[in-house]
Amino acid sequence: MLYCVMIDVNLPADMDSAELAKLKEVERLRAIELQESGKFVHLWRVAGRMANISIFDCESNDELHELLTSLPMFPYFSLKVVPLAKHPSSIK
Amino acid sequence: MLYCVMIDVNLPADMDSAELAKLKEVERLRAIELQESGKFVHLWRVAGRMANISIFDCESNDELHELLTSLPMFPYFSLKVVPLAKHPSSIK
Amino acid sequence: MLYCVMIDVNLPADMDSAELAKLKEVERLRAIELQESGKFVHLWRVAGRMANISIFDCESNDELHELLTSLPMFPYFSLKVVPLAKHPSSIK
Amino acid sequence: MLYCVMIDVNLPADMDSAELAKLKEVERLRAIELQESGKFVHLWRVAGRMANISIFDCESNDELHELLTSLPMFPYFSLKVVPLAKHPSSIK
Amino acid sequence: MLYCVMIDVNLPADMDSAELAKLKEVERLRAIELQESGKFVHLWRVAGRMANISIFDCESNDELHELLTSLPMFPYFSLKVVPLAKHPSSIK
Amino acid sequence: MLYCVMIDVNLPADMDSAELAKLKEVERLRAIELQESGKFVHLWRVAGRMANISIFDCESNDELHELLTSLPMFPYFSLKVVPLAKHPSSIK
Amino acid sequence: MLYCVMIDVNLPADMDSAELAKLKEVERLRAIELQESGKFVHLWRVAGRMANISIFDCESNDELHELLTSLPMFPYFSLKVVPLAKHPSSIK
Amino acid sequence: MLYCVMIDVNLPADMDSAELAKLKEVERLRAIELQESGKFVHLWRVAGRMANISIFDCESNDELHELLTSLPMFPYFSLKVVPLAKHPSSIK
Amino acid sequence: MLYCVMIDVNLPADMDSAELAKLKEVERLRAIELQESGKFVHLWRVAGRMANISIFDCESNDELHELLTSLPMFPYFSLKVVPLAKHPSSIK
Amino acid sequence: MLYCVMIDVNLPADMDSAELAKLKEVERLRAIELQESGKFVHLWRVAGRMANISIFDCESNDELHELLTSLPMFPYFSLKVVPLAKHPSSIK
Repeated sequence: MLYCVMIDVNLPADMDSAELAKLKEVERLRAIELQESGKFVHLWRVAGRMANISIFDCESNDELHELLTSLPMFPYFSLKVVPLAKHPSSIK
Repeated sequence: MLYCVMIDVNLPADMDSAELAKLKEVERLRAIELQESGKFVHLWRVAGRMANISIFDCESNDELHELLTSLPMFPYFSLKVVPLAKHPSSIK
Repeated sequence: MLYCVMIDVNLPADMDSAELAKLKEVERLRAIELQESGKFVHLWRVAGRMANISIFDCESNDELHELLTSLPMFPYFSLKVVPLAKHPSSIK
Repeated sequence: MLYCVMIDVNLPADMDSAELAKLKEVERLRAIELQESGKFVHLWRVAGRMANISIFDCESNDELHELLTSLPMFPYFSLKVVPLAKHPSSIK
Repeated sequence: MLYCVMIDVNLPADMDSAELAKLKEVERLRAIELQESGKFVHLWRVAGRMANISIFDCESNDELHELLTSLPMFPYFSLKVVPLAKHPSSIK
Repeated sequence: MLYCVMIDVNLPADMDSAELAKLKEVERLRAIELQESGKFVHLWRVAGRMANISIFDCESNDELHELLTSLPMFPYFSLKVVPLAKHPSSIK
Repeated sequence: MLYCVMIDVNLPADMDSAELAKLKEVERLRAIELQESGKFVHLWRVAGRMANISIFDCESNDELHELLTSLPMFPYFSLKVVPLAKHPSSIK
Repeated sequence: MLYCVMIDVNLPADMDSAELAKLKEVERLRAIELQESGKFVHLWRVAGRMANISIFDCESNDELHELLTSLPMFPYFSLKVVPLAKHPSSIK
Repeated sequence: MLYCVMIDVNLPADMDSAELAKLKEVERLRAIELQESGKFVHLWRVAGRMANISIFDCESNDELHELLTSLPMFPYFSLKVVPLAKHPSSIK
Repeated sequence: MLYCVMIDVNLPADMDSAELAKLKEVERLRAIELQESGKFVHLWRVAGRMANISIFDCESNDELHELLTSLPMFPYFSLKVVPLAKHPSSIK
């Protein structure tokens, strides 16, 4: 079951650069782990902004919640979830 | 080059049902044609609404414009385009 | 799996009264049918407005979409879907 | 008399983790206490966000205000209250 | 129990003037009737706009809904309800 | 001449509790003083929120400005003023 | 006492041109009459839009309401009123 | 003096196709005329939407207003004007 | 050439009072200077809020920018500029 | 391929002035470098605000993202990207 998740990442402009680098690295590792699990099926950058559009494939709303809150940058997210259904004109 | 396109379809509630059926059919045929061309790579229904989230893969902004305006329901769309870039944590 | 669905019903102010009465009756029958199926678990009126807050219990986003679009007043809805997860402090 | 209460919890991203753990625990205890009283009838998590949708059953607007402001996280809430009425198509 | 009700009246600009005069008259009569009942305690015009701010005193959310929907202009309203509680600094 | 004033009070969640108690007390005393003067005719709490809906009766816009800015919590207000006129259907 | 009034004029795009010309003429005459009375002290066009920014000088909110609703195009207005006070740095 | 003008063109979806073709043609001719005059210096299509972003070079706000209202599609525009100044980092 | 400038002044609620008094004084002096130059033709306080509505008379967008950024409180402004044109019904 | 980029620069009002001067200088140098490369084709100041409207000419969404994030003030930007297509009435 698919969900489109739109995320704005609101990192403070004055964050310590070492802390920022570390946060980005743990975020990257967790994002890769989730992608390799098959649950996190697409991850795109919104051009020009610290924002992402992602597609998740989960068993349930509960699982989606668990995955998103496991991301290290979660406390900095403004986040919108759109549950997706099959489109009658999709050929997939 | 990818774009996320979010579309709300604002069909008048009192549209003639034969006209509506015909419009849906030509829309479906054009959507399939675009998907088969490889330009229209994902098409999802927003659950519970006459709305879509789509991913297009185009050569340019001009090509994207041409494809979207070729859809028969285009005059009924409220539409938002988000240009996408590669995300540094994407494994694709 | 639960979803909160917020619906504004935008009926035209000048709708023919017989047509309106009929539409309300078929809507009522379908709403009762869905409630009796166990899929439509709560239905509340927003005080003072032609608007509802509902809770649906569905297998999937696809099923939710199917149920909502089966409501006769669907073409008149402005609708927002919020997927719900278990809250860690809920005692249910 | 029912109310739907939508809450966004805006905890500072840099809150001390011990303080945060303690705040979450007192919030959980008060939420359980209110649920056991029968006044706080539903509590759901909005999937993917630090946000809740709740249903309260109160004697009056005053009682609702008293209950909500008794929650330890109240100072961090963005909150919307929707008073609910019986829906003519509800079977409850 | 008090509620603040903010109403925008969206009458079509091209409404037939006789129909409009009649609608205003039945609205006025019903508004007076509700005020005389003690349920509709304040009625103010928003200066410069076809909009009102009102205070209702009702037993319950259900009663408020019943009163508001009994107004003849209800189908033309955009309406917001704010449930009110006693303010700790009020001297009333 | 009446004005409806809607106020959101944005106190910092981490305000020192002694300072907060003192601020609330001076605010309460000034609010009582204004009510006793007959200028501040209604003061209601928005149920569930640190927000107020008030009615002021002033000689002029200038007087309204003077009264509102004399409230000790003024620097923390988000505030909207709606000038009110007599409603043709009001019985007062 | 001054008010800033911001008006968007929402004339239907398909209005009959003779009717439109007549409406513009009666609006113009009433606007001139109000300006000559000294109540309507400034009238500016928002560059590029069918919108105005105006300053009215009235005895009361009631008088402002009376003047604005006397404008023939009133039914087509989206209108916002801002009550003005003397600014401490104004040299007038 | 430059202005950025953002225009959404809200043509009715059911406009007669001959009338639409004619309107587009007169609009095109006027747009070309204005560009050739040197007043209308850039005209871009917003990809995927019936919307434009334009740059005008005018003597004054009045001239800008005159040019924009001379466009045949003006009654169908939702329009935003942004006055532009020289940027200190611009090399032009 | 006229511009309407709407300014919200977002001073931090916890600003040091001596610093605040000094900032208000230099702002007042600069505002008077600009008014005496004839460029800053009207300055009104929005009743009940730390906000202003002003009218500037400038040679160009560049001059307007220069004047506004010369105000000492500029870093605390949320600001909207509306370029004004002559209104066909204005008698000035 | 062109993009319109609208940027609000949200510098903290209390930023250290030396730090601010340095940040503005490195921003200016990078902006000049990008303009000289031919990728950053227009840069305008929004009159009266710390905001810009820019036009970029890039090979792809990825290149646009790379250029924008290379600007030293990027962490302080609120930013909107509008992909542009050729307008059928443009004479360029």
